[in-house]
Amino acid sequence: MTNLRIPGPTPCPDETLVEMSRQMINHRGPEFAHSLNNVTFGLKQVFQTTNDVFTLTASGTGGLEAAVVNMLSPGDKVLAVSIGVFGDRFATIAKTYGAEVIHLSFEWGKAAELEAIRKALNENPTVKAVLVTHNETSTGVTNDLESISKLVKEFDKLLLVDAVSSMSSINFPVDEWGCDVVVSGSQKGWMVPPGLAMLSVSEKAWAANAEAKMPRFYFDIGKAKSYLEKGQTPWTPAISVVFAMEKALQMMMEEGLENVFARHIHIADVTRQGVKELGLELFADEKYASNTVTSVRAPEGLDVKLLLKIMREQHDTVLGGGQLHLAGKMFRIGHLGYVTEEDVKDVLNKLKVALPEAGFEVKS
Amino acid sequence: MTNLRIPGPTPCPDETLVEMSRQMINHRGPEFAHSLNNVTFGLKQVFQTTNDVFTLTASGTGGLEAAVVNMLSPGDKVLAVSIGVFGDRFATIAKTYGAEVIHLSFEWGKAAELEAIRKALNENPTVKAVLVTHNETSTGVTNDLESISKLVKEFDKLLLVDAVSSMSSINFPVDEWGCDVVVSGSQKGWMVPPGLAMLSVSEKAWAANAEAKMPRFYFDIGKAKSYLEKGQTPWTPAISVVFAMEKALQMMMEEGLENVFARHIHIADVTRQGVKELGLELFADEKYASNTVTSVRAPEGLDVKLLLKIMREQHDTVLGGGQLHLAGKMFRIGHLGYVTEEDVKDVLNKLKVALPEAGFEVKS
Repeated sequence: MTNLRIPGPTPCPDETLVEMSRQMINHRGPEFAHSLNNVTFGLKQVFQTTNDVFTLTASGTGGLEAAVVNMLSPGDKVLAVSIGVFGDRFATIAKTYGAEVIHLSFEWGKAAELEAIRKALNENPTVKAVLVTHNETSTGVTNDLESISKLVKEFDKLLLVDAVSSMSSINFPVDEWGCDVVVSGSQKGWMVPPGLAMLSVSEKAWAANAEAKMPRFYFDIGKAKSYLEKGQTPWTPAISVVFAMEKALQMMMEEGLENVFARHIHIADVTRQGVKELGLELFADEKYASNTVTSVRAPEGLDVKLLLKIMREQHDTVLGGGQLHLAGKMFRIGHLGYVTEEDVKDVLNKLKVALPEAGFEVKS
Repeated sequence: MTNLRIPGPTPCPDETLVEMSRQMINHRGPEFAHSLNNVTFGLKQVFQTTNDVFTLTASGTGGLEAAVVNMLSPGDKVLAVSIGVFGDRFATIAKTYGAEVIHLSFEWGKAAELEAIRKALNENPTVKAVLVTHNETSTGVTNDLESISKLVKEFDKLLLVDAVSSMSSINFPVDEWGCDVVVSGSQKGWMVPPGLAMLSVSEKAWAANAEAKMPRFYFDIGKAKSYLEKGQTPWTPAISVVFAMEKALQMMMEEGLENVFARHIHIADVTRQGVKELGLELFADEKYASNTVTSVRAPEGLDVKLLLKIMREQHDTVLGGGQLHLAGKMFRIGHLGYVTEEDVKDVLNKLKVALPEAGFEVKS
């Protein structure tokens, strides 16, 4: 079987895939309500929140758009903290819908610096919301969201978090950290195919929602709330993905959340260690290296495109390249969701063979 | 097995359900590009168009939103022709995003009248676009879209069509009828679970898109176009549903489009005939009665809610009720997509038993 090691979509266990093939049911009937309510209950446990949690039929990007359009009005000033492609995307969505965006960018590969955020908030007292990525897959960096949250709360700002590739794999207690809107996507650490975005909404966020004037219809969480009270979604949901999510949440609870997080920590350690043993360097600042994706800096002489092709065609292993201006300069190994230590060791063994063929002599 | 006879989601054949359980692949790799290109090719055949056709990860409502936000600017005047819930929804979406909506409503159960549309267009020469539902599932009526299209083209207006529940089941040659944006949804006649909206975009529509200023990001078809050139979608797509759609399109081509349409015509005839033989009346004006859903007027004494409950719990048959102010006043039998004459005969036989228990004596 292909070893799909990109940071999403991720491989799914047979247990969730079989749920994907269930026959259709009435999305306004009692059987679907039962599944949706189970999913909502399970999501709240993983988000570690008593806030409302909704499932939308969309990719993670749709979830980020939902966060923006439900919380803000055109002209609102927001501070967008970006450490890569997905941070930039969050900022662009806000700008597209008419927010005045203060774009606070950090060098790709580094985490966001607290003092820079503090300075930006001091200099811009009218900022309404802070947008931040928890785990940036484009660079393989996880922000210190606990500290960022604490700082943002000091300034009493709304905090909107992209947790698309962290939630379910990396510990993120939403209520303890006081995050207002937190977005994830089914195809990341959830062991489920793409099709659902999930987001939590705090009381403070609901207050912002009551004032927010950006236009919204498909992604209107007010409608999502009134329908969820009946065990429904406003529009026809991706029923199959809800079934798969119901099963995946059950599997996560059986494994135990703490164990899921510990597994990701351990596998990430193994990956980083293995990469270094090959004589390669991490792209990410190691202090903030992600536990869901490892980014590797392309050394002198390595043809990344060729490496990925050899890995795919000769070793049945799919890795991620660098995005945008990082193309050719790095590659990425995803290790989130349904992943074992053997899966990443298999990648490392195959890299050992493939790297020299793509121009880089590994350490012996 | 449950006889799911609502106008969507619809039952899926084993052939498409098994595709839903395929393992995940890289959505930026050659294997996915192959599937997406196959789907795009197949969709063009069913839409009978050489226009661009896109798949978005969303429900049909998301597709309608995409049609609105990609074609219009705030302040644009549009004529929204409505014959039920979904026509009203299309109008509401346009209004939500700042269009000036002239709402031309017809009595529920009737089709739109050409002369009224002509009058509205004569009285409102600055109308930029006409929004119309091809097949209105809430009332079981199919508009004479060929004539409406011809009229709208006489006035040289942009024509945006909700074909969510008609395309794939009812003949709708998009190019021949000159429709600019046409939207459908995977869970209707396509024999595929929910998760994808599909829409075609004419050259005239692209010209409108170049001027359109409504904010859009997730549903931006400009991005969809540039990614489709690489066999990709801008955001992670519902891969499983794309796989199922690939198979369903192949099955439709094997059956032959003409045969698919003929099957729907025949089964609708059987349904309408059978309903009348039970002593019931159609809700829809029979001249425009839909070939994908039959709406039945609740006779004096019939408790619709009880009828649906008996059908569901005692006969394993799921029918649709009336929506909004039609609740309790009618019920609906869906017969689109993966449906046979036996499926609707089974419904009719079971109604014969259940109707008296719910307060209506059927004709003997």
